Amino acid sequence: MELLEKRIQEDGVVKKGGVLKVDNFLNHQMDIALFNEIGKEFKRLFADRPVNKILTIEASGIGIACITAQYFQVPVVFAKKTQSINLDGEVYSTKIESFTHKRVYDVIVSKKYLGPKDRILIIDDFLANGCAVNGLLDLIECAGASVEGIGIVIEKGQQMGGRLLREKGCRVESLAVIERMDEETGEIFFRH
Amino acid sequence: MELLEKRIQEDGVVKKGGVLKVDNFLNHQMDIALFNEIGKEFKRLFADRPVNKILTIEASGIGIACITAQYFQVPVVFAKKTQSINLDGEVYSTKIESFTHKRVYDVIVSKKYLGPKDRILIIDDFLANGCAVNGLLDLIECAGASVEGIGIVIEKGQQMGGRLLREKGCRVESLAVIERMDEETGEIFFRH
Repeated sequence: MELLEKRIQEDGVVKKGGVLKVDNFLNHQMDIALFNEIGKEFKRLFADRPVNKILTIEASGIGIACITAQYFQVPVVFAKKTQSINLDGEVYSTKIESFTHKRVYDVIVSKKYLGPKDRILIIDDFLANGCAVNGLLDLIECAGASVEGIGIVIEKGQQMGGRLLREKGCRVESLAVIERMDEETGEIFFRH
Repeated sequence: MELLEKRIQEDGVVKKGGVLKVDNFLNHQMDIALFNEIGKEFKRLFADRPVNKILTIEASGIGIACITAQYFQVPVVFAKKTQSINLDGEVYSTKIESFTHKRVYDVIVSKKYLGPKDRILIIDDFLANGCAVNGLLDLIECAGASVEGIGIVIEKGQQMGGRLLREKGCRVESLAVIERMDEETGEIFFRH
């Protein structure tokens, strides 16, 4: 997606350890006009799929998922990190290791909002090693729901997550795939 | 807001300890069509205010803030709970006590995305004792930004948060204000 790649080139900052900071427009400050273009593109890519619900994970997936949901006219469910007293005991749960935060989270979704009739589009901001998406797939499998596709804003192509998901048959559509980043010069190269 | 009150009556569940569960449409599963009506209403209520940014707090404020931002055509910034290695050291921080989770969070926002030129509309899903909103006001004050208003989806009128904010001069607009909930019958009464 050209508009997105351009924005990553302009505002993305390459940090040590393979970190790409895009908090200017994607996951801290959020450019809602860009999110609308992202949502439209996900709809175009998954137009053939009978999606009836979008699943994401807190926190940075929520904004993109909500804007995208307008184009599919479906509700969004977000998986929650750690148990809240406001949720019933009736949850599906899994564990997800965070690359960014270097810790393991318990992630839950209420059984009321994920079930066998649900045809899920997973939406998230980043795909790196795939831990978050695999956790969501785990929750979907527990619920007996089906996965119609996985929509990712930025995939880090150097890491294995995307390849492994595609190898096991998932339809993954990433709007920008990072081929390589140069920590010295700050240059970002995309895969096409 | 009649549509919202109707939905709370239909789908809200009153739990022990003054807890109102609205995770069917507001803060776990999210009804995006309803969020659009909520966003329009916030725009109507704050149409006279020169808002240039919406500030919310993760996680359940993000969806409403993003949908609402479309009507103001402004970006959203969400304050983050606990430090992330993906954020620079350059942050404003405060502490917020969570009524729901019975714990204290460190909450941060990058100095890059909150500054003296920002005219902020705070958006959140719930207002009870006001801890979250007061934390956000603290961050805004640290940044030298100004507050144009506070838009809340559900205010728990039995708790002090809303009254204290209004007493200190904040313009608070709550789309539904709970007057009283009956834990025995599950009835919910609104303030008008």
